Amino acid sequence: MPLYPHRHLLALQGLEPPYIAELLDLAESYALLNRGGKAQRDLLRGRTLINLFFEDSTRTRTSFELAGKRLGADVINMSVSTSSVNKGETLLDTAATLNAMQTDLLVIRHSQSGAPALLSQKVDAGVINAGDGTHEHPTQALLDALTIRRRKGTLENLTVAICGDVLHSRVARSNIHLLLAMNCRVRIVGPPTLIPAEAEALGVEVFHDMRAGLKDADVVMMLRLQKERMQGGLVPSAREFFRFYGLDAAKLRHAKPDAIVMHPGPMNRGVEIDSAIADDPARSVIGEQVEMGVAVRMAVLDVLAQNRRRNS
Amino acid sequence: MPLYPHRHLLALQGLEPPYIAELLDLAESYALLNRGGKAQRDLLRGRTLINLFFEDSTRTRTSFELAGKRLGADVINMSVSTSSVNKGETLLDTAATLNAMQTDLLVIRHSQSGAPALLSQKVDAGVINAGDGTHEHPTQALLDALTIRRRKGTLENLTVAICGDVLHSRVARSNIHLLLAMNCRVRIVGPPTLIPAEAEALGVEVFHDMRAGLKDADVVMMLRLQKERMQGGLVPSAREFFRFYGLDAAKLRHAKPDAIVMHPGPMNRGVEIDSAIADDPARSVIGEQVEMGVAVRMAVLDVLAQNRRRNS
Amino acid sequence: MPLYPHRHLLALQGLEPPYIAELLDLAESYALLNRGGKAQRDLLRGRTLINLFFEDSTRTRTSFELAGKRLGADVINMSVSTSSVNKGETLLDTAATLNAMQTDLLVIRHSQSGAPALLSQKVDAGVINAGDGTHEHPTQALLDALTIRRRKGTLENLTVAICGDVLHSRVARSNIHLLLAMNCRVRIVGPPTLIPAEAEALGVEVFHDMRAGLKDADVVMMLRLQKERMQGGLVPSAREFFRFYGLDAAKLRHAKPDAIVMHPGPMNRGVEIDSAIADDPARSVIGEQVEMGVAVRMAVLDVLAQNRRRNS
Repeated sequence: MPLYPHRHLLALQGLEPPYIAELLDLAESYALLNRGGKAQRDLLRGRTLINLFFEDSTRTRTSFELAGKRLGADVINMSVSTSSVNKGETLLDTAATLNAMQTDLLVIRHSQSGAPALLSQKVDAGVINAGDGTHEHPTQALLDALTIRRRKGTLENLTVAICGDVLHSRVARSNIHLLLAMNCRVRIVGPPTLIPAEAEALGVEVFHDMRAGLKDADVVMMLRLQKERMQGGLVPSAREFFRFYGLDAAKLRHAKPDAIVMHPGPMNRGVEIDSAIADDPARSVIGEQVEMGVAVRMAVLDVLAQNRRRNS
Repeated sequence: MPLYPHRHLLALQGLEPPYIAELLDLAESYALLNRGGKAQRDLLRGRTLINLFFEDSTRTRTSFELAGKRLGADVINMSVSTSSVNKGETLLDTAATLNAMQTDLLVIRHSQSGAPALLSQKVDAGVINAGDGTHEHPTQALLDALTIRRRKGTLENLTVAICGDVLHSRVARSNIHLLLAMNCRVRIVGPPTLIPAEAEALGVEVFHDMRAGLKDADVVMMLRLQKERMQGGLVPSAREFFRFYGLDAAKLRHAKPDAIVMHPGPMNRGVEIDSAIADDPARSVIGEQVEMGVAVRMAVLDVLAQNRRRNS
Repeated sequence: MPLYPHRHLLALQGLEPPYIAELLDLAESYALLNRGGKAQRDLLRGRTLINLFFEDSTRTRTSFELAGKRLGADVINMSVSTSSVNKGETLLDTAATLNAMQTDLLVIRHSQSGAPALLSQKVDAGVINAGDGTHEHPTQALLDALTIRRRKGTLENLTVAICGDVLHSRVARSNIHLLLAMNCRVRIVGPPTLIPAEAEALGVEVFHDMRAGLKDADVVMMLRLQKERMQGGLVPSAREFFRFYGLDAAKLRHAKPDAIVMHPGPMNRGVEIDSAIADDPARSVIGEQVEMGVAVRMAVLDVLAQNRRRNS
């Protein structure tokens, strides 16, 4: 069975487990190369990667930029603030422009769900969704999965609690699709106002109490409280949120003794997570998530570039 | 006869036809290499290209960045918003700084006409004007010319209608100089308030009616309505402008049946051009313009780098 | 005796003269390679350099970017305005993220004194202070020293007058440490409100009169008047400041006939320096400072990358 067979990586919903596993295997080998300081500089030599970010994200942009450069690609950053979008250009005109420049790989972050999919229909480049609205953020879920697999030895049959502001989180949605595909038990835990209405239809269990939600979990995945996406009246106070839903030692005690703690970053310390937990090397795998992020993105770029060559 | 003999590319006014033709020939060969995915990675290896943009322009900056990287140059972007210009530095001090850093090629966009020429007198680098005030934008006119030549088989003796906001358009000025040098009949078409007073002295015909201006044209070149450069009272309404000067099927019918439609981008759809025309693959060559933009810039960088080596 | 033995370059205070001399020797050899257009493209091939700028500085950032690229490193720019700092992330979380991305060299500019030192304790990368608060800016002092050494043949036993806004100048502090270590006589000259209280404890002579301060100086080093760091009531008027402390021909006449004039840039012409002096090729070495800046940064990157490999 071949590697991931699609031209684009737009979402994890519907992606079959063997493809997930093989992407993770390839990413694992890039992680080892990165640790050894051995880059594959010639793999994407002469290929053009454009980071098209309509929302700010230094971490994700940097991670893709590093991944592209470590594989030898020419990487070009385009951010919305300097973009001709300001001159009234439509997303599709931007797509046509990038296509005409013979872009090989296009990484896009956009505030509107579905923008990367729309764009992918108009360009020859392989398109990677780096986060769209509240829809998906597939490379984040892949790097989370790789981190879990390295720590737990497997991705199958784990109990994973995804906690906090699930409503605004594309990270949560991508993780739910991937983890359910790998036969995990997925719980989402948060206040009723921050749980999406369609949650149970996705096949997850919903908890409003952290102790119950974390009970016997193998993995505790905290989300960032996305205040910038909330309406004025609905923003919980940081102190109150932390008291009920912030991860601290007392709440973590309900999970399995060897449960790992994850966070996609950037963290609001003292809001969704206590610093003592975030910095505990025995529990927190937050640094490893970042490291695996570069490796996963190298794997995705590699595979999409191969698929592009095969199709052209 | 040698290739373009100057150290800089500041304007097309006065440039002789054989030099134009040879730049276009070289650009044509780069266009073929780009289509084949074959970059000349070693040509500018170790050379430094600085994109110095005092006005935002993602398209042009990206096009030069890609051109430089495809030839192997080290490309550095400097934009005004992060520049020490904010700390009160003069343009000439910026020039002296870039010169001392041993910059080989300097691409400059500036809101003041003549800024690139001033800078070129102070630096050892080859300077390329990427648009200065309402003066010139030579690489845009070269890429337009290459696109026309590919579609029409020649640049000579064509009838070209340049339409819309000619007054604020450096693109129009560069095109007028180039097209007249190549013996084209050049018409400019627009409302009296958007036609420069000196237009007829340039050697073009002026029309205020689109039907008359487009009659039997081989090429219809639309310009962007640059509202940001207009005074409050003089900004035409989009609807009114489109009615009289926006390119739609009815107006285009007056041009030759095989006339091509061009636009330098970014487009204001429904203002200067109807979407049905912009997206019509039989008429619109807008995508090809963008593609030729990278190729033309590779040719210009190549030639100026050669001239610089010869002189140093 | 080996080259500079530390993992980081955070400050010049306490750095011993042989290490300074050897860094300058290496930088000198890079200056020659740069003049000859010969880059050492493979030295940092596969290494990652991140420019982490919490304060704007096009000049310094560009200088490090060029230095890194000329040595073949992958260079990534992160500026605060697009950084996740805006999402509430702490400096230490940023450090942890960059560390997890396997950054080799980290260049940091920050408005708080001590931020680079704090960060250096948390990362595996070699950290270079590119200016922190009013503390130090070590590569600026090294490039100043190299420029002086090239013009004067030696760094020892010179009389150096550092003039103007010493209070807010990290450049001045780094220069004072380096020059005193090299047995120079260091004078600081400025109005009482712009001289730090601890000045004499540093081992320098303090002057409030330019004529007395410049008398028989070998080197006149002007500083930028940093109005952005001053409180409202204390900002001197430009005209008054220039009259008393701006460097013009009359004041410069008090220095040695072959005294050189320096400025770290960007200059406020007509405030701290007269244009006739700034542009006098017989006296001003301001361009050479910029050129040596790239060379010094190449030397520092080279040495820190070597030390990192040795330790890992």
